[in-house]
Amino acid sequence: MSLTITLLGTGGAQQVPVFGCDCAACQRAHLHVQYRRLPCSGSVNFNGAVTLLDAGLHDLAERWPYGSFQQFLLTHYHMDHVQGLFPLRWGVGSQIAVYGPPDEQGCDDLFKHPGLLDFSHTLTPFVTFDLQGLQVTPLPLNHSKLTFGYLLASAHSSIAWLSDTAGLPSDTLQFLLKNPPQVVVIDCSHEPRDKPPRNHSDLNTVIALKAEMGSPRIILTHISHQFDVWMMENALPNGIEAGFDGMVIELEG
Amino acid sequence: MSLTITLLGTGGAQQVPVFGCDCAACQRAHLHVQYRRLPCSGSVNFNGAVTLLDAGLHDLAERWPYGSFQQFLLTHYHMDHVQGLFPLRWGVGSQIAVYGPPDEQGCDDLFKHPGLLDFSHTLTPFVTFDLQGLQVTPLPLNHSKLTFGYLLASAHSSIAWLSDTAGLPSDTLQFLLKNPPQVVVIDCSHEPRDKPPRNHSDLNTVIALKAEMGSPRIILTHISHQFDVWMMENALPNGIEAGFDGMVIELEG
Repeated sequence: MSLTITLLGTGGAQQVPVFGCDCAACQRAHLHVQYRRLPCSGSVNFNGAVTLLDAGLHDLAERWPYGSFQQFLLTHYHMDHVQGLFPLRWGVGSQIAVYGPPDEQGCDDLFKHPGLLDFSHTLTPFVTFDLQGLQVTPLPLNHSKLTFGYLLASAHSSIAWLSDTAGLPSDTLQFLLKNPPQVVVIDCSHEPRDKPPRNHSDLNTVIALKAEMGSPRIILTHISHQFDVWMMENALPNGIEAGFDGMVIELEG
Repeated sequence: MSLTITLLGTGGAQQVPVFGCDCAACQRAHLHVQYRRLPCSGSVNFNGAVTLLDAGLHDLAERWPYGSFQQFLLTHYHMDHVQGLFPLRWGVGSQIAVYGPPDEQGCDDLFKHPGLLDFSHTLTPFVTFDLQGLQVTPLPLNHSKLTFGYLLASAHSSIAWLSDTAGLPSDTLQFLLKNPPQVVVIDCSHEPRDKPPRNHSDLNTVIALKAEMGSPRIILTHISHQFDVWMMENALPNGIEAGFDGMVIELEG
């Protein structure tokens, strides 16, 4: 048995290429589809079940026909993380569970008109719950809207999904120091900056976190076109790699 | 010179095929892409300028690169009519004008974070304005959110775009009787019903409007999968035809 995480999207709300931009990274992404970055999201395969981690892709219904996944697990209710739910909610069939933070607003009219989506599965920080045998622990993050990262753990492996966030709150960092994951997927929207940015992390922030956590493998996501340009000219430190759309991380289950 | 309107999408928020649905219309749309219906929207080509009528398509940036169109003209701020604006607003370049009704809320945080979109172009019912030579008149419609249809007129032709609406308000109907368009594109979400539906039109409503207006050519849009099933078994009256994604209407300019 394996625990497999696929990065479906590794960009921000802006995506790559950016509308109207002709920077080197956007030009490259126009020419070669493998360099495009859709909204940050993923899928988790474990024990025969599929969990969709955020819902910012617009073609969810085509990629994941009804019945091909068990539930959504949302980090937060910003548009680029939930926009794929809007057409889906008007689908036909029994309800689909949506797990996520206890955000009272949600996004636009999702809570008012949930259709077949069941948003009642609100989560509590650091309280582990079970998804078809996968142990999931919500981890508060630093963002402009109530946001949870998640530690996803099987009997033999664990991976932390930490986006969107500017660094980490101290209680989340302490939890991860006590429960170190093999792999960390983390928001790194920005190239190294003198002042740490708000709402998202830059590479300096992630390098500092790696030193503190001692994580063997860090995968960057929520990557902006400016950071892509930076990476076209600079190497990442050992143990830190850039995620890409379609990247598959397979761990022992 | 010609006035050309292309129907980019002829479905509702649910689209066709509907997520999880195996009705005859949804099965057909899965098998044959020409039967799919994306969110109701269009493009207008006149006098070398392009106007995008609503913005519910998710791949606007790919279909319409920066600079390939002049402005957006919005009917209303429901998600299925504006969702394509969310990634686009973070583009690079000078501002893009968005014309539409004076809706104070807009949709989600579009007004709070407009990016390069300029939402200041709010319109007044029945006050004609100019878009690169095209004369545009906002027409109030009957919908659950403040919604305008539009009469689009050149020197020789005119076409009315009337979606989303349940029938027509009397002042809009009176205006169209005085200014009869050659072509009417109108919301017809539903197969004929005993009781007229709320917020959207059914075929009985449109047939009654055609009799009153004497319109020579009526094209139906915002079509649901149930109405598609009905049309697989029933013919439409003379002078009424179902729109389809990609349909081109070319009039003398």
